[in-house]
Amino acid sequence: MQKQILLKKRPKETPTHNDFEVVETSIGTPSDGEILVKTIYISVDPYLRGRMNDTKSYIPPFKLNEVISSGVIGQVIESKSNRFDKNDIVLGSLGWQEYNIIKEDSVRKINTNIAPESTYLSVLGMTGLTAYFGLLDIGKPKEGETVVVSGAAGAVGSIVGQIAKIKGCRVVGIAGSEDKVNLLLNDFGFDAAINYNTQDVGVALEEACPDGIDVYFENVGGTISDAIFPLLNNFARIPVCGAISAYNTAEDIGPRVQTHLIKTSSLMQGFTVGNYSSRFEEGIQELATWLKDGRLKYEETITVGFDKTIDAFLDLFKGANIGKSLVKVAEIEK
Amino acid sequence: MQKQILLKKRPKETPTHNDFEVVETSIGTPSDGEILVKTIYISVDPYLRGRMNDTKSYIPPFKLNEVISSGVIGQVIESKSNRFDKNDIVLGSLGWQEYNIIKEDSVRKINTNIAPESTYLSVLGMTGLTAYFGLLDIGKPKEGETVVVSGAAGAVGSIVGQIAKIKGCRVVGIAGSEDKVNLLLNDFGFDAAINYNTQDVGVALEEACPDGIDVYFENVGGTISDAIFPLLNNFARIPVCGAISAYNTAEDIGPRVQTHLIKTSSLMQGFTVGNYSSRFEEGIQELATWLKDGRLKYEETITVGFDKTIDAFLDLFKGANIGKSLVKVAEIEK
Repeated sequence: MQKQILLKKRPKETPTHNDFEVVETSIGTPSDGEILVKTIYISVDPYLRGRMNDTKSYIPPFKLNEVISSGVIGQVIESKSNRFDKNDIVLGSLGWQEYNIIKEDSVRKINTNIAPESTYLSVLGMTGLTAYFGLLDIGKPKEGETVVVSGAAGAVGSIVGQIAKIKGCRVVGIAGSEDKVNLLLNDFGFDAAINYNTQDVGVALEEACPDGIDVYFENVGGTISDAIFPLLNNFARIPVCGAISAYNTAEDIGPRVQTHLIKTSSLMQGFTVGNYSSRFEEGIQELATWLKDGRLKYEETITVGFDKTIDAFLDLFKGANIGKSLVKVAEIEK
Repeated sequence: MQKQILLKKRPKETPTHNDFEVVETSIGTPSDGEILVKTIYISVDPYLRGRMNDTKSYIPPFKLNEVISSGVIGQVIESKSNRFDKNDIVLGSLGWQEYNIIKEDSVRKINTNIAPESTYLSVLGMTGLTAYFGLLDIGKPKEGETVVVSGAAGAVGSIVGQIAKIKGCRVVGIAGSEDKVNLLLNDFGFDAAINYNTQDVGVALEEACPDGIDVYFENVGGTISDAIFPLLNNFARIPVCGAISAYNTAEDIGPRVQTHLIKTSSLMQGFTVGNYSSRFEEGIQELATWLKDGRLKYEETITVGFDKTIDAFLDLFKGANIGKSLVKVAEIEK
């Protein structure tokens, strides 16, 4: 038997344990062309909150009483596929359960010689690619420009800021604690960092961005984001990656942005990393090179134990994590 | 002596006559390299409202107690320039006064054989070019897509809708009266039109856009614009040209747009026509061809008499005009 996590109710606002159900179910055995994968790491991500609502989006909503899924690193325990051997380490979008039986084409092998397996869910995974394509393809940062990123100590934000530094920009991060601010300044090399819990973001931004804002990488929405618009330079670019402040509220009301966009000829572009799937290899290559060269660092907040998966997910909305949030479910068997 | 119109006070919200002062001043005589131009048409435009505030924008604010300026068609009365002859018809950004003495490089001659002189302030002028570049360069409408335009019976909106029809789109206009709705449907060839004063815009849009919205050309902002976002298709484009509902209010509050942009990977891009100045000739050529071929129609609301200039400007915020608003100050002398 194994445990799995189902969506029991659609969360009204901030999700709670009551919205989920942990059940026991049999592990089963793979048929031809299938593999049995033991879960090693589960990726918990803010965007999953959107899939818990029953609304149209770029990805279908989770169904009630079905298992939740996200990025998972697993180890092949039993293979009925020619493509995989026992003990292979694989990556895919799999269920929140201790074991998954899946078709051979639903995962791919990863090369753990390049980097530790967890990085395929963080800096070399969707998180890193989200930062890479959002910043470079939409934000188009130019040397000497000012780039502001919110959720700056988070999975995506911390990578965004470092790539912007690699591109020669002045980088300002917004985060929610002194620890995070120190991390941004001391470990990730940001030029300035703002603690939105203790500082007036508008005032602090004006001080941190004496030449205005050329790129704002949007992870949070809400009042933090509102403070950005009056400081936009002409032809500013805003990759809109996330709006975590809005995910748990029905009423997301604030100053409209139209007049700011007109006055500065600025651009806001929503995106999801899937838009760039044809270019993933390019992104992974460059991220891996920066990682190898020590130009890119990453942090992971790792919660240990399958039973802590829901906690790790709920923590995302408390700003508890630094870098990528992962749940470590099991050790790899050598 | 002649009359001129000064900005006396910065309007608090909706401008009134009290914000302006009409004074008498001498006409003067041109020096070498200057011309004396008699005002024939004055263009009154919503964007001028923004210039009456003392805030940073793409164009400097008007100064208090100085003459207001905008697009003007005039006739050369006296020339001390080799470039201009008496009676030439010229176009430039000139003062709201009956006569302007200007340097020879501040205006250009227009060819009234192609189209009536007033069109250089409307369909062949900044208005037409705004519609042309905003729709085609940012909106990128593709055949069969649904294009929605607000302020649809106005100077820019009426041209936007017709260009979208030329490009093979389904075109839905939003306007503020039955007369305007009828004009859109019967004269400008829109596929559907919504009267925001009598209809629930959200409900009407859902009905008029069964395949969702691919391009929204934003002229008005506010609650009309709010109703667009839930209907955006994936990869929708929103050229943000104007937000007339916001120009006269300090509090422009509404639903934030970030989550909509993320869910649909949509783009909002503010712009002003000046961004495209290097391509004006291209735009004028194509607009003139469509005009000649009868594929593009235009409407003008012409107010007669210099003394009515302020009224014509104030009327813009009452939705009184259809098509381009112009003040006819004098007849051309043959």
